[in-house]
Amino acid sequence: MARINENYLKLKAGYLFPEIGRRVTAFQKANPEAKVIKLGIGDVTRPLVPAVVAAMRAAVDEMGTDAGFRGYGPEQGHDFLIDLIREHDFAKRGVAIARDEIFVSDGSKCDSANIQEIFATDNVIALTDPVYPVYLDSNVMAGRTGAAGEDGRYAGIVYMPTTAENDFTPELPEQHADVIYLCSPNNPTGAAATRAQLQRWVDHARKTGAVILFDAAYEAYIADPSLPHSIFEIEGAREVAIEFRSFSKTAGFTGTRCAYTVVPKEVTAQTGAGERVPLNGLWNRRHTTKFNGVSYPVQRAAAATFSPDGHRQTREIIAFYMENARLIREGLTRAGYTVYGGQNAPYIWLRTPAGSSSWEFFDRLLGSAHVVGTPGSGFGPSGEGYFRLSAFNSRGNVEEAIERIGRMPTS
Amino acid sequence: MARINENYLKLKAGYLFPEIGRRVTAFQKANPEAKVIKLGIGDVTRPLVPAVVAAMRAAVDEMGTDAGFRGYGPEQGHDFLIDLIREHDFAKRGVAIARDEIFVSDGSKCDSANIQEIFATDNVIALTDPVYPVYLDSNVMAGRTGAAGEDGRYAGIVYMPTTAENDFTPELPEQHADVIYLCSPNNPTGAAATRAQLQRWVDHARKTGAVILFDAAYEAYIADPSLPHSIFEIEGAREVAIEFRSFSKTAGFTGTRCAYTVVPKEVTAQTGAGERVPLNGLWNRRHTTKFNGVSYPVQRAAAATFSPDGHRQTREIIAFYMENARLIREGLTRAGYTVYGGQNAPYIWLRTPAGSSSWEFFDRLLGSAHVVGTPGSGFGPSGEGYFRLSAFNSRGNVEEAIERIGRMPTS
Repeated sequence: MARINENYLKLKAGYLFPEIGRRVTAFQKANPEAKVIKLGIGDVTRPLVPAVVAAMRAAVDEMGTDAGFRGYGPEQGHDFLIDLIREHDFAKRGVAIARDEIFVSDGSKCDSANIQEIFATDNVIALTDPVYPVYLDSNVMAGRTGAAGEDGRYAGIVYMPTTAENDFTPELPEQHADVIYLCSPNNPTGAAATRAQLQRWVDHARKTGAVILFDAAYEAYIADPSLPHSIFEIEGAREVAIEFRSFSKTAGFTGTRCAYTVVPKEVTAQTGAGERVPLNGLWNRRHTTKFNGVSYPVQRAAAATFSPDGHRQTREIIAFYMENARLIREGLTRAGYTVYGGQNAPYIWLRTPAGSSSWEFFDRLLGSAHVVGTPGSGFGPSGEGYFRLSAFNSRGNVEEAIERIGRMPTS
Repeated sequence: MARINENYLKLKAGYLFPEIGRRVTAFQKANPEAKVIKLGIGDVTRPLVPAVVAAMRAAVDEMGTDAGFRGYGPEQGHDFLIDLIREHDFAKRGVAIARDEIFVSDGSKCDSANIQEIFATDNVIALTDPVYPVYLDSNVMAGRTGAAGEDGRYAGIVYMPTTAENDFTPELPEQHADVIYLCSPNNPTGAAATRAQLQRWVDHARKTGAVILFDAAYEAYIADPSLPHSIFEIEGAREVAIEFRSFSKTAGFTGTRCAYTVVPKEVTAQTGAGERVPLNGLWNRRHTTKFNGVSYPVQRAAAATFSPDGHRQTREIIAFYMENARLIREGLTRAGYTVYGGQNAPYIWLRTPAGSSSWEFFDRLLGSAHVVGTPGSGFGPSGEGYFRLSAFNSRGNVEEAIERIGRMPTS
């Protein structure tokens, strides 16, 4: 008699974005004339840039010829892409990453969800609160937690509150943790870690034997030149960290699908008997057994983002979104809101007006301004009283959304 | 102190295809003048067909426009593709599959490796022997086995020998099994299950409460009109089976990456308390949490295989490969070999000449005929004494390979 993985039953039924979708659909049905502006889900809106389109087209054409056809590629990605990643994303910032430390994949959501599989199920996981829900849910499904309590927190997880009170800089956990998820620039708070902050984390991990899973999917949005783009810019990180990078937000690949994970050869974890095992080999085994490589034209498209034209064109789009972020920040501030983020990240994180919960503010914003955002409580209990707006939309929609929000009473 | 998933250490170090690659590289280095013909790894060789190339180009162009750009799609796939799958792969064969029973993915390797995650870790797994290694390895990594024994078999797995002695039709397992992997047309043996044989499996699963994981990645190669293409053509299968389908071998998508999994709403497994839980919802949760959808141009490319031109063009390529299979079968038979498969599958499974092991024959074939195949023992202990050749190559190479093999002494 087949039995299910009962850990799935611990997951809360209403995943954040389906619930948002449900409320928006209900609102639009009741108000068919309302023009709803979505600043909710973190999905890009600008088309693929010309250099990417040209490269992907050329690769599709190649696939239609005897000489150019490609079947199975290396599961880890083609060298033409890996070498460009090494050069542009790392060597240019003084970081040396070897070919076989890069694993090209179809998304950072997948990688950051799958990575926990190489760790023992009894590792203690530390997460910021609020947090990108995939880190948590993938560990719930793997059985690394108990049930969720009344407060929405799962037993067994070490939560690290990240709020205005600590300037969105989580404290080092006092409780024991084996695997620590960090995301910078942060989804959802928009905060970006400084070099000194990351150095503290790396030092902590080295001292405690923890492994840091570092999600840098938004690194392209860093504007402050003093901030690190990779955890491997930090002394000692190669022995304790794994990094996730993505083309989704860097080059508008949310519907095209390409990302990569960096697993240095020095990073290890222990067996029960105390033997140190390199995680690079374990991830390689996971990646080659449960994945079969990224589509060849997609890898060519990703490679094109590193060409002079591709780089310039994608940077222009990021500048466009960051101008949106500035407009949202300033518009909300003028309207009396307290806002965070939006300077080194495409997310603006705002305090809901006094006394209103995240979901109450969601309903009010939708009902009065016809603007969709994301309730902070959807990212964790410490997100209650906060709200996320994203900079991914047209200039016209962003300006109209700000104007409408400005006309709303703040309480 | 982070600890590793020690189940990974149970995996045998030398995965089959890397070892083949190592031996071929060594041979080519020692014999630089030899023209090696590869009939080993099951990778297609013919380019994408014109209808697919045209559709994928058009989709790439769309992605470069404001109006046509697509960001995140549904993780389960776009409806335009799902509806074509329902119509062409199922309705035309009298099988009704609902939209939300189809989960588009980037490959059947991934799906067949990931599916075990929705089952409890103490389920007993039954596998044919020989078998596609991913079914086994993914379960070893998840902790559903003990260590591998001297005979290469993992403790805790129910092995179902599939050899000439039982006409490559595994017996129903006498031991208890909760989850049963079947593959038809079979990789590696090339055998295809009849309707009556599949009915026996479905009846067995219904009687014992087992779930059948049915891999139909090679269904397009079925030539015999009496054979079923989907397990859902079998009475009662919707309550006990999940099916994997792929565009890799159907349309040459091994480097393009698209597949899908069918999870009917009726198929369930139990909780420890005996409650029945639909697997559709569990797989949906897994798919939406740990995956983020297939690249939009790839889904358009897959959809084009169902157009009249796309269908005709891909069928021509399958006919081409099946003519290769016929030539290999007949050539080897003339040369004195005992051969199986190759009539409803692109794989020819042959007996190695008396007294030689699979790897000995691999070395002899490479050394004398400069032809690469796959040792049967690489697929499991019962594959010892067998050898797999694939029909995926040019006509010229296939003819030359047969001629060279014909000149080899069979012992």
